[in-house]
Amino acid sequence: MKTTLDTLVKQHPELEGLKPFSTPYATTPYLADATQKHTRKILNSVEDAIKATGLKDGMTISFHHAFREGDKTINSVMDIIASMGIKDLTLASSSLLSCNEPLIKHIEAGVITQIYTSGMRGELANAISHGLMKKPIQIHSHGGRVNLIQQGEIKIDVAFLGVSTSDEFGNANGITGKSRCGALGYAMVDAQYAKNVVLLTEAIVPFFNTPPSIRQDQVDYIVKVDQVGDPTQIAVGAVRLTSNPRELMIARYAADIIEHSGYFEQGFSMQTGSGASATACTRFLGEKMVKKGISASFALGGITAGIVELHEKGLIEKLIDTQSFDTAAGMSLAKNPNHFEISTNIYANPASKAACVDQLDVTILSALEIDLGFNVNVLTGSDGVMRGASGGHCDSAAGANLRIIVAPLIRSRIPTVVRNVTTKVTPGDNIDVLVTDHGIAVNPKRPELIERLKAANLPITTIEKLYDRAISLTGEPKPIEFTDRVVGVVRYRDGSVIDIVKQVKD
Amino acid sequence: MKTTLDTLVKQHPELEGLKPFSTPYATTPYLADATQKHTRKILNSVEDAIKATGLKDGMTISFHHAFREGDKTINSVMDIIASMGIKDLTLASSSLLSCNEPLIKHIEAGVITQIYTSGMRGELANAISHGLMKKPIQIHSHGGRVNLIQQGEIKIDVAFLGVSTSDEFGNANGITGKSRCGALGYAMVDAQYAKNVVLLTEAIVPFFNTPPSIRQDQVDYIVKVDQVGDPTQIAVGAVRLTSNPRELMIARYAADIIEHSGYFEQGFSMQTGSGASATACTRFLGEKMVKKGISASFALGGITAGIVELHEKGLIEKLIDTQSFDTAAGMSLAKNPNHFEISTNIYANPASKAACVDQLDVTILSALEIDLGFNVNVLTGSDGVMRGASGGHCDSAAGANLRIIVAPLIRSRIPTVVRNVTTKVTPGDNIDVLVTDHGIAVNPKRPELIERLKAANLPITTIEKLYDRAISLTGEPKPIEFTDRVVGVVRYRDGSVIDIVKQVKD
Repeated sequence: MKTTLDTLVKQHPELEGLKPFSTPYATTPYLADATQKHTRKILNSVEDAIKATGLKDGMTISFHHAFREGDKTINSVMDIIASMGIKDLTLASSSLLSCNEPLIKHIEAGVITQIYTSGMRGELANAISHGLMKKPIQIHSHGGRVNLIQQGEIKIDVAFLGVSTSDEFGNANGITGKSRCGALGYAMVDAQYAKNVVLLTEAIVPFFNTPPSIRQDQVDYIVKVDQVGDPTQIAVGAVRLTSNPRELMIARYAADIIEHSGYFEQGFSMQTGSGASATACTRFLGEKMVKKGISASFALGGITAGIVELHEKGLIEKLIDTQSFDTAAGMSLAKNPNHFEISTNIYANPASKAACVDQLDVTILSALEIDLGFNVNVLTGSDGVMRGASGGHCDSAAGANLRIIVAPLIRSRIPTVVRNVTTKVTPGDNIDVLVTDHGIAVNPKRPELIERLKAANLPITTIEKLYDRAISLTGEPKPIEFTDRVVGVVRYRDGSVIDIVKQVKD
Repeated sequence: MKTTLDTLVKQHPELEGLKPFSTPYATTPYLADATQKHTRKILNSVEDAIKATGLKDGMTISFHHAFREGDKTINSVMDIIASMGIKDLTLASSSLLSCNEPLIKHIEAGVITQIYTSGMRGELANAISHGLMKKPIQIHSHGGRVNLIQQGEIKIDVAFLGVSTSDEFGNANGITGKSRCGALGYAMVDAQYAKNVVLLTEAIVPFFNTPPSIRQDQVDYIVKVDQVGDPTQIAVGAVRLTSNPRELMIARYAADIIEHSGYFEQGFSMQTGSGASATACTRFLGEKMVKKGISASFALGGITAGIVELHEKGLIEKLIDTQSFDTAAGMSLAKNPNHFEISTNIYANPASKAACVDQLDVTILSALEIDLGFNVNVLTGSDGVMRGASGGHCDSAAGANLRIIVAPLIRSRIPTVVRNVTTKVTPGDNIDVLVTDHGIAVNPKRPELIERLKAANLPITTIEKLYDRAISLTGEPKPIEFTDRVVGVVRYRDGSVIDIVKQVKD
């Protein structure tokens, strides 16, 4: 071959540099070994996998949060990393929840020095809001996270992805095996972009494991572990079913608004989010669809049991799922052929070649606070402490034709409608309607919608009046006392800074 | 926000460069326009799409060849490009066939000046073998192509991908609509790696088109065209069913070899390729599986009607399909839930994190020539003219445990077994058995296999004896006369040069 190549390069000097063939396994030596061929990715422990990836001080690691409060992967992997003496890591989990309280000690010890996340809850959020970290955490939306990864701001060196099953090559999913989280929409992104992908799997099943939500060409190492998560804890916290009469009232109003909005036609589409009223609204919407004799073309986003029920009744043609919000949704993904799993890049990234949120007619969203400009805060509480998540909120609001906020006017004697939100996450330009248990306010930028809803005899008022009503019941809230120190940076989905979070005074 | 950002950067100078939020649609202006939101990717003509991509002289374009001889996309797009006056293009179609004869005029006119392909047939191949092009063409395997793309040697500027259906965002497949080619394994790679992806689709169907073999986050422009291909022509040429008694004899031997090879156990796996004997062997293998009471775990590769039949009988658990070799395979992909579509990266790329070929027990392959060192030529004929394709030949041979070549000893008075192959495509180290209508030769590197097959009373001989037999029937073939000019470079799957093809003398 040497002579042959010389002939070639003599005639075509531009081909200089081509290498002659040596042996069939020159670049794939494992193929010469009958065992290694099958086992080369499988390691005995997470520690071995961490060593194999070359993880070292200063790098970035990531996780998915599909198990929400039931996650068993993030804390355990961080404990192992800490025990190995690795420090100064950027943690880029797709989100963090109350269950991640044990991370506090790793922040204190300097193992984690920077965090990117959609949100935080519980003691971890409380500690960070009170100044636990030197660097402010970066809060992103689900779509915005993929944007930051693609732009190179988040460079994931090692993704540790918990799955219920994987084969020996790394074809993995969350809908077969024991602890099934359902859709792996976040993990799919990390599997695509991380330099090293480590799967933690509860079972190594025979090749070809299907469906391959995470694919063999994305996975470097596989470790069998006892448990990656507890799916019964997925619906704990933000996601719950309600029997609260005020929440049900709000849900009914929201359904009425959709019915009369002009978008409630055959083939309409929707996203309902994870809030209690939003989830309840789904049921009422189903009744209206039956009555009108129409069906939805798709439901998007976090999929819930209520959405699955409508799908199985034939009221929603397709489910497009980036996160299964309860075990029923995960089970549906496993069995219903028109329930599809998508990455968060496809779900909501404004920089992807197309985001599904852009196809939405209706989205129902929640709020911790909403202000007179319809700006929404889903991150910080009235005490200034972080206790929520950006999630798909601003993504879905940017894409949908009708953006409805459902929220009680007052929570535990604290008004939801405020003069200015403590933290701006979703801009008011992208919010059309606020539904409370004291009436409905429509953004004045949507006069045609105001007309339609008034014509339907819905209790339409203004956001100023809702604000006055709230204040009349609770009194003007005492301003939160912050220090000057920035503890969080809120990134809009396009990567720009839409707000910052300051440290609360003790 | 300006002040806020200033506060931030004062405390954290490392965050300098972050931009303040401006408007929700700063990076997605189309979201502010109710029509553009839906139609921004759809263009009126292929010419408009070419303009939109900025295609210009010197760039690289690509196509998939899933329609094989029925392709209606490659020639028509090249005609349009030529009419626009664009020159000096590298054509990186996954393969080319006899139907691509019209490309000759575009090579003559300097529109196409370089070609990467798995193979060529007919008049185009004849013309190139006789010196049509200044630069030698680069021949790669299906897996090797992805490797060259990932290494950056093939940088696809614009991929033109023909599909039967797409929605307005670019979710597309080859199993719904009118002209269905089946699996889009080649196109999936181009969709992932090309800088610009243009879909030519026969129909624009409602969002969310499923399954999204090509995904919305991969597609830039969409053009509706009358026809992208004729699926009835997929099985023309290389892929055909046989009633030839010699081919059937070879097929029976191959099935016997598999049965007694030691690999024919519950859960074995196989690839049968597109040759006539290989396809026929599938049927005989099915009978043996029933008799032994076993089933295969999967069949890989180009999927044929014969393989589908075994799958539907429950004899093969899963079909892993990168190219549907006939309309029956395409229809199966559409309807059988355990028939899966994979990209050629997952199928066979040695540089991907795992290739399915590495899991194969048995692969049945064809040969135009095989030599005394078991090296195989599937590219050039005995006259030195290119008339075949590298395909998945060397990929599958590198990965599988048992590699069987099926070929008649003599074709039209020309021996298949030769002293040295005209062109080396697959190295003899990766070939275990040659099955001809005059006996079976086993590579001496597999003594245990020789023993097993002898014990089964199969007509085992040596490749030297088969060579002698061939020569005794045809006489020693006259050496081919080549000029010194190189017209083709044969790349092994790892990118190295395994052989070159010289221009034949007229």
